[in-house]
Amino acid sequence: MYKVNKNFLKLPGSYLFSTIARKIREYQEAHPDEEVIRLGIGDVTQPLAPAIVDALHAAVDEMASAESFHGYAPDLGYEFLRELIAREDYQARGCDIAPDEIFVSDGAKCDSANIQELFSQDNRIAVCDPVYPVYVDSNVMAGRTGNYDPETGTWSDVIYMPCTEENGFVPELSPYDPDIIYLCFPNNPTGGVMTKDQLQRWVDYANKNSAVIIYDAAYEAYITEADIPHSIYECKGAQYCAIELRSFSKNAGFTGVRLAYTVVPKALGFYSSSIGNASLHDMWARRHGTKYNGAPYIIQKAGAAVYSDAGKAQLKEQVAYYMNNARIIKEGLTDAGYKCTGGVNAPYIWLKTPDGMTSWEFFDYLLDTAHVVGTPGSGFGPAGEGYFRLTAFGSKENTERAIERISKI
Amino acid sequence: MYKVNKNFLKLPGSYLFSTIARKIREYQEAHPDEEVIRLGIGDVTQPLAPAIVDALHAAVDEMASAESFHGYAPDLGYEFLRELIAREDYQARGCDIAPDEIFVSDGAKCDSANIQELFSQDNRIAVCDPVYPVYVDSNVMAGRTGNYDPETGTWSDVIYMPCTEENGFVPELSPYDPDIIYLCFPNNPTGGVMTKDQLQRWVDYANKNSAVIIYDAAYEAYITEADIPHSIYECKGAQYCAIELRSFSKNAGFTGVRLAYTVVPKALGFYSSSIGNASLHDMWARRHGTKYNGAPYIIQKAGAAVYSDAGKAQLKEQVAYYMNNARIIKEGLTDAGYKCTGGVNAPYIWLKTPDGMTSWEFFDYLLDTAHVVGTPGSGFGPAGEGYFRLTAFGSKENTERAIERISKI
Repeated sequence: MYKVNKNFLKLPGSYLFSTIARKIREYQEAHPDEEVIRLGIGDVTQPLAPAIVDALHAAVDEMASAESFHGYAPDLGYEFLRELIAREDYQARGCDIAPDEIFVSDGAKCDSANIQELFSQDNRIAVCDPVYPVYVDSNVMAGRTGNYDPETGTWSDVIYMPCTEENGFVPELSPYDPDIIYLCFPNNPTGGVMTKDQLQRWVDYANKNSAVIIYDAAYEAYITEADIPHSIYECKGAQYCAIELRSFSKNAGFTGVRLAYTVVPKALGFYSSSIGNASLHDMWARRHGTKYNGAPYIIQKAGAAVYSDAGKAQLKEQVAYYMNNARIIKEGLTDAGYKCTGGVNAPYIWLKTPDGMTSWEFFDYLLDTAHVVGTPGSGFGPAGEGYFRLTAFGSKENTERAIERISKI
Repeated sequence: MYKVNKNFLKLPGSYLFSTIARKIREYQEAHPDEEVIRLGIGDVTQPLAPAIVDALHAAVDEMASAESFHGYAPDLGYEFLRELIAREDYQARGCDIAPDEIFVSDGAKCDSANIQELFSQDNRIAVCDPVYPVYVDSNVMAGRTGNYDPETGTWSDVIYMPCTEENGFVPELSPYDPDIIYLCFPNNPTGGVMTKDQLQRWVDYANKNSAVIIYDAAYEAYITEADIPHSIYECKGAQYCAIELRSFSKNAGFTGVRLAYTVVPKALGFYSSSIGNASLHDMWARRHGTKYNGAPYIIQKAGAAVYSDAGKAQLKEQVAYYMNNARIIKEGLTDAGYKCTGGVNAPYIWLKTPDGMTSWEFFDYLLDTAHVVGTPGSGFGPAGEGYFRLTAFGSKENTERAIERISKI
């Protein structure tokens, strides 16, 4: 008789964004004439840049003739893309990352969920609180998180590192000796950032304690200030302790196109007397080879166009467009008396709910009165309670109208 | 200190097709003037059909304008595609499968590797021998297979079901009471098939023993004979015990496009007194929601074109083209004195190696003397030793030349 993975059944309720989608659907069914503006899910709205559209069309044409047709891609990604990534995203910033340390995939969500497979069940994970839910949920499914406490919304075996107003939304070095540390900066959901010095302290901490850092840099393209690192490999010694996740979703509008990559340095070794040397790089390569079949050729060609001169110029404009929305939201809300952070190096504005409302109360309030959708901070963890996330990924027109509506209530 | 997943380290050597790729590379470096013909990996060579190319271009154009741009896809797949699949692949064959039982993904390799996550570690798996390596390797990584015996190339906790000349390459009902049974028909690598009666016996067996069948039907488009089921749901009661994997790779040439789907019926329930009811359908939906972000919009539109009238007509021709290659291989080899099966309802020809050669000896021999690449049967499991797989996915010209060369040696 087959037995199911009981860890799946421990997961409480449904995934945050599914719940939001249901609430919007129910609201719209009840109020078919109200126009709801969505500044909730971090989904882009601007069309693909012309350089990317051209690359997609050209790649589709290649697939239409036997001479230029491409079947199975290399599991780890095409060389043409891995070389561009290594050169443009790393070597150009002084990071010593080689093409064969880049693993191309179909999304940072998948990578951030799958990466935990490299580790044994008895590792203890640490996450920022609030946090992108996938880091925790994927570890729940793997049986690594202990028991869920519905009162606090936390797991007994997870180390939560509060990111609050007091610490500037940057976690303090954990006294609890975690094995695997998830960090996402610029942060989703708070929009907070770490300076290079702050991140260096985490790298030193991980190296000293033989911990591994899973560094999610999906939002690095939104950094506008100096001294904020775009990659963890800008820090000394990071190649010995850090895996970095990157995405084309936010810098190039690929949420519906699906392309990402993960960097696993060859120097990231693990040694124990019982098993000898184990290379996380080789293990991740083996995972790709066994469980993945490569990103589509036409999508990888679109990824390469991100690094063309035309692509770079067009995407710089696209990022600036969203960051102008961030400015509109932040200034508008501040003028309306709200307290908010983020929005300077990240496309997220993290808003303190007024009048002691809970996050979900504010969600319902905003949907009812302003017909604007955001994301309840408590959906990202207990320290997110009393906060609310708005994203800069709408159109300028909708963003302006949403802020106008919120200002009036 | 972090600890790695030691199960990964148990995996012997590298993945079959990587080894083949290395051997070809080494041969070509040593013999730069020899032209090698590859009938090894099951990768298609014909260009995408015009209806699919048109759909891709149209979808790319949609992504180029804000009004028709598509961001994140529904995790489980777009309704337009799920409805087509349910209607055309199932309801049209009398199978009672609904759109919300279809889960769209980027590949059957991923799905076949990920599906084991739904089950606890103490399930015992049964696989055909020879077998597509991913079923076993993904279970090795999950710690479900015990220890590896390099002598026999088998795992202590895996039930191997030999598929041999004697049983017509159809496994007999296992006396070992497996919990999870992997079946792939039409079979990769043997090209063998099960009749509907034979498959019904497996369905009845699984229902009687509360086992679950993972049915890989990636090659169903190649079935030419009546009474061979295209789906396991053609069998009575299969919705209570079977998950079906399907791919667009082979019926539509999508190996480099990446699209597949998995069917998990809502009736596939599991009950135990300790955990109550657990729905595999809901668990798989939760996995998609947590670890996956949907297949690209443009690729799903290409998938929909597979079901258009033009798409159907063009792909019928494409499949016929490959099956003509299968005929050329089978007849040519038979005339040359080789003993081979498959190739009638599947794009694979399963060849008995001559003169008692091992599979890898025959691989090297064929590469050296005919400059033709196939896949050693032993790479698929111990019962594959002494066999060799050739695929019909080359061009007609290359297939004819390969057979001519083999006939001459």
